[in-house]
Amino acid sequence: MNLIILTESDKIDEDAYRLSDYRAEHIRSVLRVEEGDTVEVGLLNGPQGKARVQFVSGDAVELRCERLEEVPAPQPTINLICALPRPQTLKKILITSAMMGVRSLHLIRANRVEKSYFQSPLTEAERQRPYLIEGLSQGKLTRLPEVCVHDRFRPFFEDGHGPLDEKADRSTLRLLCTMDEAPSLDTVFEPSAAEVTIAIGPEGGWVPFEIEFMQSVGFRPFSLGRWILRVEHAVTAALSQIELLRMMHK
Amino acid sequence: MNLIILTESDKIDEDAYRLSDYRAEHIRSVLRVEEGDTVEVGLLNGPQGKARVQFVSGDAVELRCERLEEVPAPQPTINLICALPRPQTLKKILITSAMMGVRSLHLIRANRVEKSYFQSPLTEAERQRPYLIEGLSQGKLTRLPEVCVHDRFRPFFEDGHGPLDEKADRSTLRLLCTMDEAPSLDTVFEPSAAEVTIAIGPEGGWVPFEIEFMQSVGFRPFSLGRWILRVEHAVTAALSQIELLRMMHK
Repeated sequence: MNLIILTESDKIDEDAYRLSDYRAEHIRSVLRVEEGDTVEVGLLNGPQGKARVQFVSGDAVELRCERLEEVPAPQPTINLICALPRPQTLKKILITSAMMGVRSLHLIRANRVEKSYFQSPLTEAERQRPYLIEGLSQGKLTRLPEVCVHDRFRPFFEDGHGPLDEKADRSTLRLLCTMDEAPSLDTVFEPSAAEVTIAIGPEGGWVPFEIEFMQSVGFRPFSLGRWILRVEHAVTAALSQIELLRMMHK
Repeated sequence: MNLIILTESDKIDEDAYRLSDYRAEHIRSVLRVEEGDTVEVGLLNGPQGKARVQFVSGDAVELRCERLEEVPAPQPTINLICALPRPQTLKKILITSAMMGVRSLHLIRANRVEKSYFQSPLTEAERQRPYLIEGLSQGKLTRLPEVCVHDRFRPFFEDGHGPLDEKADRSTLRLLCTMDEAPSLDTVFEPSAAEVTIAIGPEGGWVPFEIEFMQSVGFRPFSLGRWILRVEHAVTAALSQIELLRMMHK
Protein backbone atom coordinates (compact mmCIF):
# COMPACT_ATOMS: atom_id res chain seq x y z
CA MET A 1 0.00 0.00 0.00
CA ASN A 2 2.00 2.97 -1.29
CA LEU A 3 -0.87 5.43 -0.92
CA ILE A 4 -3.75 5.30 1.54
CA ILE A 5 -6.89 6.04 -0.42
CA LEU A 6 -9.47 8.09 1.50
CA THR A 7 -13.11 8.34 0.53
CA GLU A 8 -16.03 10.60 1.45
CA SER A 9 -17.39 7.98 3.81
CA ASP A 10 -14.18 8.12 5.90
CA LYS A 11 -14.58 11.87 6.42
CA ILE A 12 -15.41 13.05 9.92
CA ASP A 13 -14.65 16.74 9.57
CA GLU A 14 -13.06 19.26 7.20
CA ASP A 15 -9.74 17.54 6.18
CA ALA A 16 -10.14 14.90 8.91
CA TYR A 17 -10.64 11.20 8.20
CA ARG A 18 -11.21 8.22 10.45
CA LEU A 19 -10.20 4.74 9.33
CA SER A 20 -11.01 1.50 11.09
CA ASP A 21 -10.47 -1.17 8.44
CA TYR A 22 -7.42 -2.75 6.76
CA ARG A 23 -6.01 0.73 6.16
CA ALA A 24 -5.92 1.46 9.90
CA GLU A 25 -4.29 -1.93 10.39
CA HIS A 26 -1.68 -1.12 7.70
CA ILE A 27 -0.89 2.25 9.27
CA ARG A 28 -0.47 0.64 12.69
CA SER A 29 1.27 -2.64 11.83
CA VAL A 30 3.22 -2.01 8.63
CA LEU A 31 3.96 1.71 8.68
CA ARG A 32 4.15 1.67 12.49
CA VAL A 33 3.49 5.37 12.77
CA GLU A 34 2.80 7.33 15.92
CA GLU A 35 0.66 10.35 16.56
CA GLY A 36 2.23 13.35 14.82
CA ASP A 37 3.86 11.30 12.02
CA THR A 38 2.73 11.75 8.43
CA VAL A 39 1.54 9.20 5.88
CA GLU A 40 0.92 9.46 2.15
CA VAL A 41 -2.74 9.72 1.27
CA GLY A 42 -4.93 10.38 -1.73
CA LEU A 43 -8.59 11.35 -1.94
CA LEU A 44 -10.49 9.04 -4.25
CA ASN A 45 -10.79 10.85 -7.60
CA GLY A 46 -9.02 13.80 -6.03
CA PRO A 47 -5.67 15.24 -4.93
CA GLN A 48 -2.91 13.42 -3.04
CA GLY A 49 -0.25 14.38 -0.53
CA LYS A 50 0.44 14.03 3.19
CA ALA A 51 -1.81 13.50 6.17
CA ARG A 52 -0.79 13.81 9.79
CA VAL A 53 -1.72 11.06 12.22
CA GLN A 54 -3.94 12.65 14.87
CA PHE A 55 -4.87 9.62 16.86
CA VAL A 56 -4.09 5.88 16.88
CA SER A 57 -6.05 3.32 18.87
CA GLY A 58 -6.49 -0.44 18.75
CA ASP A 59 -9.26 -0.18 16.20
CA ALA A 60 -9.00 3.20 14.50
CA VAL A 61 -6.68 5.81 13.10
CA GLU A 62 -7.53 9.46 12.56
CA LEU A 63 -5.73 11.51 9.95
CA ARG A 64 -5.75 15.19 9.03
CA CYS A 65 -4.80 16.02 5.44
CA GLU A 66 -2.12 18.62 4.78
CA ARG A 67 -0.84 19.99 1.46
CA LEU A 68 -2.83 17.86 -0.98
CA GLU A 69 -2.19 18.48 -4.67
CA GLU A 70 -3.87 17.39 -7.86
CA VAL A 71 -1.76 14.95 -9.87
CA PRO A 72 -2.19 15.41 -13.61
CA ALA A 73 -3.88 12.50 -15.41
CA PRO A 74 -1.43 10.30 -17.33
CA GLN A 75 -1.06 10.98 -21.05
CA PRO A 76 -2.08 9.45 -23.38
CA THR A 77 -5.46 8.47 -21.94
CA ILE A 78 -5.65 4.67 -22.10
CA ASN A 79 -8.86 2.70 -22.53
CA LEU A 80 -8.86 -1.08 -22.38
CA ILE A 81 -11.36 -3.36 -24.05
CA CYS A 82 -11.10 -6.92 -22.70
CA ALA A 83 -13.13 -9.95 -23.56
CA LEU A 84 -14.71 -10.64 -20.15
CA PRO A 85 -12.31 -13.06 -18.41
CA ARG A 86 -12.97 -15.57 -15.64
CA PRO A 87 -13.48 -13.90 -12.25
CA GLN A 88 -10.01 -14.73 -10.89
CA THR A 89 -8.44 -13.10 -13.93
CA LEU A 90 -10.82 -10.14 -13.78
CA LYS A 91 -9.62 -9.36 -10.26
CA LYS A 92 -6.05 -9.13 -11.56
CA ILE A 93 -7.08 -6.95 -14.48
CA LEU A 94 -9.00 -4.58 -12.20
CA ILE A 95 -5.93 -4.19 -9.97
CA THR A 96 -3.56 -3.75 -12.91
CA SER A 97 -5.82 -1.26 -14.70
CA ALA A 98 -6.03 0.97 -11.65
CA MET A 99 -2.33 0.57 -10.83
CA MET A 100 -1.26 1.50 -14.36
CA GLY A 101 -3.59 4.48 -14.75
CA VAL A 102 -6.10 3.06 -17.24
CA ARG A 103 -8.97 5.52 -17.74
CA SER A 104 -11.70 3.06 -18.69
CA LEU A 105 -12.08 -0.70 -18.90
CA HIS A 106 -14.76 -2.19 -21.14
CA LEU A 107 -15.51 -5.84 -20.57
CA ILE A 108 -17.21 -7.29 -23.61
CA ARG A 109 -18.65 -10.53 -24.88
CA ALA A 110 -16.61 -12.55 -27.40
CA ASN A 111 -17.05 -15.93 -28.95
CA ARG A 112 -14.62 -17.61 -26.55
CA VAL A 113 -16.05 -15.98 -23.42
CA GLU A 114 -18.03 -18.39 -21.27
CA LYS A 115 -21.57 -17.11 -20.80
CA SER A 116 -21.43 -17.88 -17.09
CA TYR A 117 -18.82 -15.16 -16.58
CA PHE A 118 -21.56 -12.58 -17.09
CA GLN A 119 -23.33 -13.96 -14.02
CA SER A 120 -20.31 -13.40 -11.78
CA PRO A 121 -20.86 -11.00 -8.86
CA LEU A 122 -17.64 -9.38 -10.01
CA THR A 123 -19.48 -7.79 -12.93
CA GLU A 124 -21.05 -5.46 -10.32
CA ALA A 125 -19.37 -2.12 -9.66
CA GLU A 126 -19.58 -2.53 -5.91
CA ARG A 127 -17.63 -5.82 -6.04
CA GLN A 128 -15.02 -4.39 -8.40
CA ARG A 129 -14.23 -1.43 -6.24
CA PRO A 130 -11.92 -3.06 -3.65
CA TYR A 131 -9.68 -4.37 -6.45
CA LEU A 132 -9.59 -0.98 -8.15
CA ILE A 133 -8.71 0.70 -4.87
CA GLU A 134 -5.99 -1.88 -4.23
CA GLY A 135 -4.51 -0.97 -7.62
CA LEU A 136 -4.68 2.78 -6.99
CA SER A 137 -3.08 2.25 -3.60
CA GLN A 138 -0.20 0.30 -5.19
CA GLY A 139 0.29 2.70 -8.11
CA LYS A 140 -0.06 5.91 -6.06
CA LEU A 141 -2.96 7.10 -8.19
CA THR A 142 -6.39 8.32 -7.13
CA ARG A 143 -8.54 8.35 -10.22
CA LEU A 144 -10.88 5.36 -10.27
CA PRO A 145 -11.01 3.75 -13.74
CA GLU A 146 -14.50 3.60 -15.25
CA VAL A 147 -15.53 -0.06 -15.66
CA CYS A 148 -18.39 -1.11 -17.96
CA VAL A 149 -19.70 -4.55 -18.85
CA HIS A 150 -21.21 -5.02 -22.31
CA ASP A 151 -22.89 -8.34 -22.87
CA ARG A 152 -22.87 -8.20 -26.66
CA PHE A 153 -19.97 -7.97 -29.07
CA ARG A 154 -21.01 -6.11 -32.24
CA PRO A 155 -23.35 -3.59 -30.57
CA PHE A 156 -20.51 -2.45 -28.32
CA PHE A 157 -18.61 -1.32 -31.39
CA GLU A 158 -21.57 -0.31 -33.55
CA ASP A 159 -23.29 1.81 -30.92
CA GLY A 160 -20.09 3.68 -30.18
CA HIS A 161 -19.81 3.08 -26.45
CA GLY A 162 -17.24 4.74 -24.23
CA PRO A 163 -14.05 5.57 -26.09
CA LEU A 164 -15.69 4.71 -29.41
CA ASP A 165 -18.31 7.46 -29.08
CA GLU A 166 -17.47 9.68 -32.03
CA LYS A 167 -20.28 12.11 -31.34
CA ALA A 168 -18.43 13.13 -28.19
CA ASP A 169 -15.87 14.85 -30.43
CA ARG A 170 -13.04 12.59 -29.47
CA SER A 171 -10.77 10.42 -31.48
CA THR A 172 -8.88 7.46 -30.15
CA LEU A 173 -6.14 5.38 -31.69
CA ARG A 174 -7.67 1.89 -31.95
CA LEU A 175 -5.32 -1.02 -31.41
CA LEU A 176 -6.05 -4.73 -31.48
CA CYS A 177 -3.74 -7.13 -29.72
CA THR A 178 -3.56 -10.43 -31.63
CA MET A 179 -1.51 -13.56 -31.24
CA ASP A 180 -0.72 -14.14 -34.91
CA GLU A 181 1.92 -12.76 -37.20
CA ALA A 182 0.81 -9.14 -36.81
CA PRO A 183 3.44 -6.36 -36.88
CA SER A 184 4.95 -4.99 -33.69
CA LEU A 185 3.34 -2.12 -31.80
CA ASP A 186 5.69 0.60 -33.06
CA THR A 187 4.39 0.14 -36.63
CA VAL A 188 0.78 0.95 -35.68
CA PHE A 189 1.31 3.34 -32.76
CA GLU A 190 0.94 7.09 -33.12
CA PRO A 191 3.06 8.89 -30.53
CA SER A 192 0.94 12.04 -30.95
CA ALA A 193 -2.34 10.29 -30.06
CA ALA A 194 -3.91 11.80 -26.94
CA GLU A 195 -6.10 8.74 -26.45
CA VAL A 196 -5.44 5.07 -27.13
CA THR A 197 -7.94 2.21 -26.97
CA ILE A 198 -6.50 -1.32 -26.88
CA ALA A 199 -8.55 -4.47 -27.32
CA ILE A 200 -7.30 -7.67 -25.66
CA GLY A 201 -8.90 -11.01 -26.43
CA PRO A 202 -10.07 -13.93 -24.31
CA GLU A 203 -8.03 -17.02 -23.39
CA GLY A 204 -7.78 -18.82 -26.72
CA GLY A 205 -7.89 -15.55 -28.63
CA TRP A 206 -10.41 -13.74 -30.80
CA VAL A 207 -12.15 -15.75 -33.53
CA PRO A 208 -11.50 -14.63 -37.15
CA PHE A 209 -14.88 -12.84 -37.43
CA GLU A 210 -14.08 -10.71 -34.40
CA ILE A 211 -10.69 -9.70 -35.75
CA GLU A 212 -12.15 -8.86 -39.16
CA PHE A 213 -14.97 -6.90 -37.61
CA MET A 214 -12.72 -4.87 -35.34
CA GLN A 215 -10.41 -4.15 -38.26
CA SER A 216 -13.42 -2.92 -40.26
CA VAL A 217 -14.11 -0.34 -37.52
CA GLY A 218 -10.55 0.92 -37.48
CA PHE A 219 -8.68 -1.31 -35.02
CA ARG A 220 -5.09 -1.91 -36.07
CA PRO A 221 -3.76 -5.37 -35.23
CA PHE A 222 -0.40 -5.75 -33.56
CA SER A 223 1.55 -8.50 -31.81
CA LEU A 224 3.08 -8.18 -28.35
CA GLY A 225 5.77 -10.68 -29.25
CA ARG A 226 6.43 -14.36 -29.61
CA TRP A 227 4.67 -15.41 -26.46
CA ILE A 228 1.41 -17.08 -25.60
CA LEU A 229 0.37 -14.96 -22.65
CA ARG A 230 -2.45 -15.07 -20.17
CA VAL A 231 -4.85 -12.16 -20.36
CA GLU A 232 -3.45 -10.46 -17.25
CA HIS A 233 0.08 -10.62 -18.65
CA ALA A 234 -1.09 -9.33 -22.04
CA VAL A 235 -2.60 -6.26 -20.32
CA THR A 236 0.67 -5.46 -18.51
CA ALA A 237 2.72 -6.18 -21.63
CA ALA A 238 0.60 -3.93 -23.88
CA LEU A 239 0.61 -1.02 -21.42
CA SER A 240 4.38 -1.40 -20.93
CA GLN A 241 5.10 -1.33 -24.63
CA ILE A 242 2.92 1.79 -25.09
CA GLU A 243 4.78 3.44 -22.21
CA LEU A 244 8.14 2.68 -23.81
CA LEU A 245 7.03 4.17 -27.15
CA ARG A 246 5.68 7.21 -25.34
CA MET A 247 9.01 7.74 -23.56
CA MET A 248 10.94 7.22 -26.81
CA HIS A 249 8.99 9.96 -28.58
CA LYS A 250 8.93 12.49 -25.79
CA MET B 1 -2.65 -25.53 -20.51
CA ASN B 2 -1.55 -24.90 -24.08
CA LEU B 3 1.06 -27.64 -24.10
CA ILE B 4 1.10 -30.83 -22.05
CA ILE B 5 4.58 -31.19 -20.63
CA LEU B 6 5.82 -34.78 -20.45
CA THR B 7 8.72 -35.91 -18.29
CA GLU B 8 10.90 -39.00 -18.10
CA SER B 9 8.92 -40.30 -15.16
CA ASP B 10 5.75 -40.40 -17.28
CA LYS B 11 7.43 -42.63 -19.86
CA ILE B 12 6.22 -46.22 -20.12
CA ASP B 13 7.76 -47.20 -23.43
CA GLU B 14 9.55 -45.71 -26.44
CA ASP B 15 7.45 -42.61 -27.33
CA ALA B 16 4.66 -43.72 -24.99
CA TYR B 17 3.65 -41.79 -21.86
CA ARG B 18 1.08 -42.49 -19.17
CA LEU B 19 -0.47 -39.60 -17.20
CA SER B 20 -2.69 -39.91 -14.16
CA ASP B 21 -2.56 -36.46 -12.56
CA TYR B 22 -4.02 -33.02 -13.39
CA ARG B 23 -2.79 -33.42 -16.97
CA ALA B 24 -4.91 -36.52 -17.49
CA GLU B 25 -7.83 -34.63 -15.95
CA HIS B 26 -7.22 -31.71 -18.32
CA ILE B 27 -7.10 -34.00 -21.35
CA ARG B 28 -10.35 -35.68 -20.31
CA SER B 29 -12.38 -32.76 -18.98
CA VAL B 30 -11.14 -29.67 -20.80
CA LEU B 31 -9.82 -30.97 -24.11
CA ARG B 32 -12.43 -33.75 -24.11
CA VAL B 33 -10.46 -35.91 -26.48
CA GLU B 34 -11.18 -39.48 -27.44
CA GLU B 35 -8.87 -42.32 -28.32
CA GLY B 36 -7.22 -41.55 -31.66
CA ASP B 37 -7.33 -37.75 -31.24
CA THR B 38 -4.13 -35.78 -30.96
CA VAL B 39 -2.99 -33.29 -28.32
CA GLU B 40 -0.08 -30.87 -28.22
CA VAL B 41 2.79 -32.08 -26.06
CA GLY B 42 6.35 -31.15 -25.23
CA LEU B 43 9.10 -33.18 -23.61
CA LEU B 44 10.63 -31.32 -20.69
CA ASN B 45 13.87 -29.73 -21.96
CA GLY B 46 13.19 -31.37 -25.31
CA PRO B 47 11.20 -31.22 -28.54
CA GLN B 48 7.47 -30.52 -28.88
CA GLY B 49 4.73 -31.58 -31.27
CA LYS B 50 1.72 -33.92 -31.34
CA ALA B 51 0.86 -37.02 -29.39
CA ARG B 52 -1.95 -39.41 -30.20
CA VAL B 53 -4.30 -40.50 -27.42
CA GLN B 54 -3.96 -44.28 -27.13
CA PHE B 55 -6.17 -44.89 -24.17
CA VAL B 56 -8.45 -42.89 -21.83
CA SER B 57 -9.83 -44.21 -18.56
CA GLY B 58 -11.27 -42.69 -15.44
CA ASP B 59 -7.86 -42.21 -13.89
CA ALA B 60 -5.29 -42.27 -16.67
CA VAL B 61 -4.48 -41.24 -20.21
CA GLU B 62 -1.88 -42.84 -22.43
CA LEU B 63 -0.24 -40.89 -25.23
CA ARG B 64 2.12 -41.82 -28.04
CA CYS B 65 4.30 -39.01 -29.39
CA GLU B 66 4.40 -38.35 -33.12
CA ARG B 67 6.44 -35.81 -35.08
CA LEU B 68 8.18 -33.98 -32.26
CA GLU B 69 10.51 -31.15 -33.25
CA GLU B 70 13.07 -29.06 -31.43
CA VAL B 71 11.96 -25.45 -31.00
CA PRO B 72 14.87 -23.02 -31.16
CA ALA B 73 15.66 -21.17 -27.91
CA PRO B 74 14.42 -17.57 -27.90
CA GLN B 75 16.95 -14.87 -28.75
CA PRO B 76 18.33 -12.94 -27.00
CA THR B 77 18.91 -15.22 -24.02
CA ILE B 78 17.30 -13.53 -21.01
CA ASN B 79 18.53 -13.89 -17.42
CA LEU B 80 16.63 -12.34 -14.56
CA ILE B 81 18.08 -11.27 -11.24
CA CYS B 82 15.33 -10.59 -8.69
CA ALA B 83 15.64 -9.59 -5.08
CA LEU B 84 14.02 -12.63 -3.44
CA PRO B 85 10.33 -11.74 -3.12
CA ARG B 86 7.71 -13.04 -0.71
CA PRO B 87 6.61 -16.60 -1.54
CA GLN B 88 3.26 -15.59 -3.14
CA THR B 89 5.11 -13.26 -5.48
CA LEU B 90 7.83 -15.81 -6.17
CA LYS B 91 5.20 -18.25 -7.45
CA LYS B 92 4.07 -15.67 -9.98
CA ILE B 93 7.62 -14.90 -11.05
CA LEU B 94 8.40 -18.58 -11.53
CA ILE B 95 5.33 -18.98 -13.76
CA THR B 96 6.06 -15.80 -15.72
CA SER B 97 9.75 -16.62 -16.19
CA ALA B 98 8.97 -20.01 -17.66
CA MET B 99 6.06 -18.68 -19.75
CA MET B 100 8.17 -15.90 -21.24
CA GLY B 101 11.22 -18.04 -22.00
CA VAL B 102 13.63 -16.74 -19.36
CA ARG B 103 16.83 -18.82 -19.38
CA SER B 104 17.87 -18.33 -15.76
CA LEU B 105 16.44 -16.70 -12.67
CA HIS B 106 18.76 -15.62 -9.85
CA LEU B 107 17.07 -14.81 -6.56
CA ILE B 108 19.36 -12.68 -4.44
CA ARG B 109 19.46 -10.97 -1.09
CA ALA B 110 18.94 -7.21 -0.96
CA ASN B 111 18.57 -4.74 1.86
CA ARG B 112 14.77 -4.66 1.59
CA VAL B 113 14.37 -8.44 1.39
CA GLU B 114 12.96 -9.95 4.56
CA LYS B 115 15.34 -12.58 5.91
CA SER B 116 12.47 -14.99 6.50
CA TYR B 117 11.91 -15.31 2.75
CA PHE B 118 15.10 -17.38 2.57
CA GLN B 119 13.47 -19.95 4.88
CA SER B 120 10.52 -20.44 2.52
CA PRO B 121 10.11 -23.98 1.15
CA LEU B 122 9.73 -22.29 -2.22
CA THR B 123 13.48 -21.67 -2.30
CA GLU B 124 13.83 -25.42 -2.98
CA ALA B 125 14.02 -26.58 -6.58
CA GLU B 126 11.49 -29.34 -6.03
CA ARG B 127 8.86 -26.85 -4.81
CA GLN B 128 9.55 -24.43 -7.64
CA ARG B 129 9.12 -27.01 -10.35
CA PRO B 130 5.28 -27.15 -10.54
CA TYR B 131 5.16 -23.38 -11.10
CA LEU B 132 7.83 -23.53 -13.76
CA ILE B 133 5.99 -26.33 -15.52
CA GLU B 134 2.73 -24.36 -15.31
CA GLY B 135 4.51 -21.49 -17.05
CA LEU B 136 5.99 -23.70 -19.77
CA SER B 137 2.58 -25.25 -20.32
CA GLN B 138 1.00 -21.82 -20.75
CA GLY B 139 3.77 -20.43 -22.97
CA LYS B 140 4.18 -23.55 -25.12
CA LEU B 141 7.82 -23.86 -24.22
CA THR B 142 9.74 -26.85 -22.88
CA ARG B 143 13.04 -25.53 -21.59
CA LEU B 144 13.03 -25.32 -17.81
CA PRO B 145 14.60 -22.06 -16.61
CA GLU B 146 17.54 -22.51 -14.26
CA VAL B 147 16.67 -21.09 -10.81
CA CYS B 148 19.33 -20.26 -8.21
CA VAL B 149 19.03 -18.70 -4.78
CA HIS B 150 21.94 -16.59 -3.53
CA ASP B 151 21.70 -15.50 0.07
CA ARG B 152 24.21 -12.69 -0.17
CA PHE B 153 24.20 -9.56 -2.29
CA ARG B 154 27.75 -8.48 -3.12
CA PRO B 155 29.25 -11.97 -3.48
CA PHE B 156 26.66 -12.81 -6.11
CA PHE B 157 28.09 -10.08 -8.31
CA GLU B 158 31.71 -10.30 -7.21
CA ASP B 159 32.04 -14.05 -7.62
CA GLY B 160 30.58 -13.90 -11.12
CA HIS B 161 27.68 -16.32 -10.73
CA GLY B 162 25.54 -17.53 -13.60
CA PRO B 163 25.26 -14.94 -16.36
CA LEU B 164 27.97 -12.83 -14.74
CA ASP B 165 30.63 -15.54 -15.11
CA GLU B 166 33.09 -13.88 -17.45
CA LYS B 167 35.47 -16.82 -17.42
CA ALA B 168 32.82 -18.78 -19.29
CA ASP B 169 33.58 -16.65 -22.34
CA ARG B 170 30.22 -14.99 -22.43
CA SER B 171 29.16 -11.40 -22.34
CA THR B 172 25.77 -10.21 -21.26
CA LEU B 173 24.18 -6.80 -21.50
CA ARG B 174 23.56 -5.80 -17.85
CA LEU B 175 20.43 -3.82 -17.17
CA LEU B 176 19.12 -2.49 -13.88
CA CYS B 177 15.47 -1.65 -13.51
CA THR B 178 15.03 1.33 -11.17
CA MET B 179 12.07 3.41 -10.13
CA ASP B 180 13.70 6.81 -10.29
CA GLU B 181 14.29 9.22 -13.13
CA ALA B 182 16.44 6.81 -15.14
CA PRO B 183 16.28 6.89 -18.95
CA SER B 184 13.98 4.60 -20.89
CA LEU B 185 15.08 1.13 -21.96
CA ASP B 186 15.81 2.03 -25.59
CA THR B 187 18.67 4.31 -24.50
CA VAL B 188 20.57 1.49 -22.74
CA PHE B 189 19.50 -1.51 -24.82
CA GLU B 190 21.76 -3.07 -27.43
CA PRO B 191 19.72 -4.80 -30.12
CA SER B 192 22.72 -6.88 -31.15
CA ALA B 193 23.23 -8.37 -27.65
CA ALA B 194 22.86 -12.15 -27.69
CA GLU B 195 22.35 -12.25 -23.92
CA VAL B 196 20.65 -9.79 -21.59
CA THR B 197 20.63 -9.87 -17.77
CA ILE B 198 18.04 -7.69 -16.04
CA ALA B 199 18.02 -6.94 -12.33
CA ILE B 200 14.67 -6.20 -10.67
CA GLY B 201 14.50 -4.90 -7.12
CA PRO B 202 12.42 -5.78 -4.08
CA GLU B 203 9.14 -4.15 -3.02
CA GLY B 204 10.29 -0.72 -1.95
CA GLY B 205 13.18 -0.75 -4.42
CA TRP B 206 16.94 -1.11 -4.20
CA VAL B 207 18.77 1.00 -1.63
CA PRO B 208 21.28 3.57 -3.01
CA PHE B 209 24.29 1.38 -2.15
CA GLU B 210 22.88 -1.48 -4.20
CA ILE B 211 22.24 0.73 -7.21
CA GLU B 212 25.72 2.25 -7.00
CA PHE B 213 27.33 -1.16 -6.60
CA MET B 214 25.49 -2.68 -9.55
CA GLN B 215 26.37 0.32 -11.68
CA SER B 216 30.03 -0.15 -10.71
CA VAL B 217 29.92 -3.69 -12.13
CA GLY B 218 28.39 -2.57 -15.42
CA PHE B 219 24.62 -2.57 -14.85
CA ARG B 220 22.91 0.24 -16.76
CA PRO B 221 19.90 1.75 -14.98
CA PHE B 222 16.66 2.27 -16.84
CA SER B 223 13.07 3.10 -15.97
CA LEU B 224 10.08 1.05 -17.10
CA GLY B 225 7.87 4.13 -16.99
CA ARG B 226 5.95 6.35 -14.65
CA TRP B 227 4.45 3.58 -12.59
CA ILE B 228 4.99 2.08 -9.19
CA LEU B 229 4.69 -1.59 -10.04
CA ARG B 230 4.69 -4.77 -8.06
CA VAL B 231 7.63 -7.05 -8.70
CA GLU B 232 5.60 -9.48 -10.80
CA HIS B 233 4.37 -6.66 -13.03
CA ALA B 234 7.87 -5.23 -13.34
CA VAL B 235 9.11 -8.60 -14.64
CA THR B 236 6.41 -8.77 -17.32
CA ALA B 237 6.89 -5.09 -18.21
CA ALA B 238 10.67 -5.39 -18.59
CA LEU B 239 10.46 -8.54 -20.73
CA SER B 240 7.75 -6.92 -22.88
CA GLN B 241 9.76 -3.81 -23.51
CA ILE B 242 12.83 -5.88 -24.47
CA GLU B 243 10.66 -7.90 -26.85
CA LEU B 244 9.35 -4.72 -28.50
CA LEU B 245 12.88 -3.39 -29.02
CA ARG B 246 13.95 -6.76 -30.41
CA MET B 247 11.09 -6.72 -32.91
CA MET B 248 11.83 -3.11 -33.88
CA HIS B 249 15.43 -3.90 -34.74
CA LYS B 250 14.86 -7.16 -36.55
